[in-house]
Formats: sequence, C-alpha cells, structure tokens
Amino acid sequence: MTMNILDLNNPLFATYVIAATLMILKVISMSWLTVWRMMVTAKGAGFRAPEDLRKTALNPNPDPKQLQADERVDRIRRIQLNDLENIPFFLVAAFLYILTNPPLLLAQILLYGYVVSRLLHFAAYASARTHDTRATLWTIGSLILVFLTVRPLLAVFGV
Amino acid sequence: MTMNILDLNNPLFATYVIAATLMILKVISMSWLTVWRMMVTAKGAGFRAPEDLRKTALNPNPDPKQLQADERVDRIRRIQLNDLENIPFFLVAAFLYILTNPPLLLAQILLYGYVVSRLLHFAAYASARTHDTRATLWTIGSLILVFLTVRPLLAVFGV
Amino acid sequence: MTMNILDLNNPLFATYVIAATLMILKVISMSWLTVWRMMVTAKGAGFRAPEDLRKTALNPNPDPKQLQADERVDRIRRIQLNDLENIPFFLVAAFLYILTNPPLLLAQILLYGYVVSRLLHFAAYASARTHDTRATLWTIGSLILVFLTVRPLLAVFGV
Repeated sequence: MTMNILDLNNPLFATYVIAATLMILKVISMSWLTVWRMMVTAKGAGFRAPEDLRKTALNPNPDPKQLQADERVDRIRRIQLNDLENIPFFLVAAFLYILTNPPLLLAQILLYGYVVSRLLHFAAYASARTHDTRATLWTIGSLILVFLTVRPLLAVFGV
Repeated sequence: MTMNILDLNNPLFATYVIAATLMILKVISMSWLTVWRMMVTAKGAGFRAPEDLRKTALNPNPDPKQLQADERVDRIRRIQLNDLENIPFFLVAAFLYILTNPPLLLAQILLYGYVVSRLLHFAAYASARTHDTRATLWTIGSLILVFLTVRPLLAVFGV
Repeated sequence: MTMNILDLNNPLFATYVIAATLMILKVISMSWLTVWRMMVTAKGAGFRAPEDLRKTALNPNPDPKQLQADERVDRIRRIQLNDLENIPFFLVAAFLYILTNPPLLLAQILLYGYVVSRLLHFAAYASARTHDTRATLWTIGSLILVFLTVRPLLAVFGV
C-alpha cells in the first residue's frame, strides 16, 4: 500500500503541516499584537484611517494624535511586512519540496530550522537587537528558503 | 472507489476552490480599483514612481501633484495591505483544513463565513464606517483563520 | 496506471513547479537586491529601524542620514510590494488551474507567460521606463491571473 503524500499520517507531510501552521499562527499573532499595541500600549496611536477618530465604544476619547505614527506599533508592522515578504513563499516552497520525497530528517531540519529562524528574528526585532543579529537570522531563513525552492525546480529536470 | 481529495467533484475540495478563488478575485480587484481611482477619480494622484510624471498616452498632462498621496487611493491600498496580511494565509490554512476531512457543513460555514467576513470588511472600510464595525468584521475572519490553522496542527498529533 | 497529479513527472505539474519556483526565486531576489542596495549602493541609507544606527560590524560608521528614504532602495521595495500583491495569488491560482487538467500547451503559455510578464515588469520598473510600459506588463500578468482563477471556479460548476 502506498501512502498518499497529502496524508496527515505521512511523516513528511506532517512535518510540513506543523511548520506551515506554526508560521501562519506567527503571522496572525503579528496582527493581534499590532491591535494590542494600538489599543492598549499606545492608547490608539498608530491608527491610519481618518474615520478612526470618531467616538466609539472602542475609542471613547478620540484625539487627532491617534493618527500619528507610534514606534511601538510601527515596529510590529515592520516585522509583519518582513513576514509577508517571506512566509507566503515558504508555505508554497516547502510544500513543493515535500513533494520531491526528501529524507525525513533533512526535511525536519530545514522546515523546523526555518520556523526557529523566524521566531528568533521576531525576538531580535521586537527587542531591538542590533541590525547584525536580525540580519543574520533573516539570512539563515532566506538561505533555507532558497534551498527549498531550488530543490523541486532541479527535481523537475531529474537532478 | 475512493475519491481523490484534490478532485473538483469532491464537495469538500469544491468548497475550498470556491472560497479560495473568490478571495483571490477579491484581492486582484483591489489592484484594479487602485488603478481606476488613480487614473480616473484622482486624475493621476497617488502615483509613487518619479518617472510617472513623464508625458505619456495614459498621462497626457503630468503634474507634480500626482506624486502626492490621495486619500481615495490610499484607502484602497490600506484595504489591500490588510488583505495581504490575511488572505494568503487563509488560502494555505483552508487547504490544510480540508485535508483533515472535516464535516462538509462545518467546512462550508467556516470557509464561506470567512469570505463573507472579508467582503463585509471591504464594504465597511471602503465606505468609512467606524473603526468598531471594521474591527468586528476583521476579528470574525481572524478567528476563523485561527481555527482553520489550529485544526490541522492538532490533527497531526491525533487530536 | 493513472499518474498522480502531484507527481513531478506529470508534465502539467512540472509546468507549475517550474513557474512557481521561478516566481518565488524572483521575490526572494528582491529582498537580496534591497539588502545589496542598502549596504553597498546607498551606504546604509534606507534603514528603517532606530537601532540600525548602532555601530556594528556591518555598519561601522553609523549616520542619522541612514534612516532617510533612498530612491534606489525604495524603488526595489515598491517592486517587491507589487510582487506581494500578485505572486502569492498566482502560486495558488495556478495550482488550482492545473487541477482542472487543462491542455498542456495552454497551461505552458499561461504560466510561462505570467513568469515572463513579471520579469519584464521588473526590468521596466527597475530601469524607470514610463508608467505606460510598466502598466501594460502588469496588466498582461493580471489578466492571466484572472483567467487562472476563474477557470477552476467555473470548473467546480461543471462549466
């Protein structure tokens, strides 16, 4: 009996599902962290739409200053934009990589390694570590992503 | 005979295809709406590249004011950025969710519910309803997305 | 024997893998091009985080001017944002299109045509060709994307 590649009991595909869902939850949590910083930490600063200055249940004391940028909010938005430049492509590249039927251990190292590199990138960026720390973590993730992308491309040509 | 999970005649996968393609068309239409507002409503305002001030067939009367921000154009761009923070992850999470073989009715409620929440979010944002209306609609979609993501993650661990 | 649709030896799926991985590599290279322009061409201009002004191995001579926008860096970022608005949706739409079992030649024309339109869009944008040239190339890609999205939606309804 051959196991379906998209079966959750297939260890290779399970590796993909774990890495992919953790990364999606990471991106979603950036949105919630932005909301939390806007509403709580910055008391509404970082709003971007003019209508957000209307008095509502969630914004009982509107203030024109709320439309000003706030570094605490902008920092999370920069992290999220960095996610948008990377994670959607990881989600597809890692899926195609799994379809090349790689060794399980290698797949685990690459996919979980990518997840760890992005979580550490978040930690370094959120805590304002130096550019070099952040750049190193981003580079590790980006190189894994290049490998995950090039491997299925080569596999199509029998390499 | 077992039906292939990726068969368009499989009701579960058909649900995914309908929800996914509607969401992709929604994002594409934001690009076209931006173009329409830039070219027609705002007479070129909202351009972002310096070379867009050259005289061309599409821009017969260039004006430096065209590089200024325009709220009608920026509003659509904010909506589209919100899409980019959400919809690519829905497309993958909903696909993985379908692979867990959920009850058809539940899948339809969640996936079509997500689509409706995003269309209403667009309507509320485009017509400048209050922040609370927009936030409520975004929250419904985000919670559905969390569920679609957590479910396959748990399924891998047999939960 | 029926060939698995997700088999890399299936010419239709191979077409998808080639187009998808080329597009992912294109997006990744925008990140690296941004890094290269920030570090080399603009000597650090275009940085966005306050902590990037700390003295480090990669930035031995920090200067407040590094946080200013730089057109060489911003141009690549605009191109990359345009990618984010298009390519993640191509990756999913083209996958669903392949599942409709289209004629191979048509699939190759559409998918490789999309890839070529995005590479030419990059060339036109990076070299600051007129808005009309860039807009024409973007439009070709966008129309292909609409077709790739609408086809599987119609296929679900037997059209």
